[in-house]
Amino acid sequence: MSTQTQPAEKYTFESFTPGTRFDLGPHTISAQEIIDFAAEFDAQPMHLEETAGKASLLGGLAASGWQTSAILMRMICDAFLLETASQGAPGVDFAQWKSPVLAGDTLRGHCEVLAARPLASRPGIGLVKFRHELFNQRDQLVLACENPIFVRLRVGRMAP
Amino acid sequence: MSTQTQPAEKYTFESFTPGTRFDLGPHTISAQEIIDFAAEFDAQPMHLEETAGKASLLGGLAASGWQTSAILMRMICDAFLLETASQGAPGVDFAQWKSPVLAGDTLRGHCEVLAARPLASRPGIGLVKFRHELFNQRDQLVLACENPIFVRLRVGRMAP
Repeated sequence: MSTQTQPAEKYTFESFTPGTRFDLGPHTISAQEIIDFAAEFDAQPMHLEETAGKASLLGGLAASGWQTSAILMRMICDAFLLETASQGAPGVDFAQWKSPVLAGDTLRGHCEVLAARPLASRPGIGLVKFRHELFNQRDQLVLACENPIFVRLRVGRMAP
Repeated sequence: MSTQTQPAEKYTFESFTPGTRFDLGPHTISAQEIIDFAAEFDAQPMHLEETAGKASLLGGLAASGWQTSAILMRMICDAFLLETASQGAPGVDFAQWKSPVLAGDTLRGHCEVLAARPLASRPGIGLVKFRHELFNQRDQLVLACENPIFVRLRVGRMAP
């Protein structure tokens, strides 16, 4: 046992091997949630008003893609990340907002480990590459996203 | 003039040519903003507590990368998007969280048009590809992101 592994850390780098999967959600998004997020971060009319949403390509009051992405992050936290020796993430390889997320939609999905490798440049830390997918209640893919997350090894050397 | 161009729409597809630039920010991020966003979307300890942040690779109470991305979106809205005939975006090609964003940091930056083309599949709509960069008050790059945005043409044919 390493003293670096906190009691809350159920998952370390070794827990994540290609094919490891976690279920995400469900989360039902309300009109008010959509409007509140949009007012702060993305005040385009289709994210603020039902009428403008219906007149747009999105077809209704629709969540900002950034909100759907943030909801994905919350689902990842709840599914495993808050019990993981996570050290943050360097970014997102891509995020595809494949279908509109409309008020009242229920989102659920999964994430899967694509690859995992210890970092030569950061002893004791590994990089785990994930693919995340969220679907609505009609099983339409609404978000596909891939990103790497830094995770501590269970028995690792600490950087000086 | 097309009736499709609303009075508020200062910018249409034709406004965006490679090299067109807009300034973004500034925005100073507070500890409370970081904690509030994290509590909702990314409750990892380094985004919730100064002590945990200092003990992490991030070096202090640090914003979730998703929050920095959402702040970028708000800056884009304020700089030009709310005056643009925007039709939403299909996603993000990549987002790189290059340096930590710590409580008290002041972010500013710019975005630049990389390419623009009308869509054969959606008459009257064009796709404008942007590169966005945000820097902190020490001129360190904290976020680099590229994404395409759908924008209506000034005089366009509407899809049936």
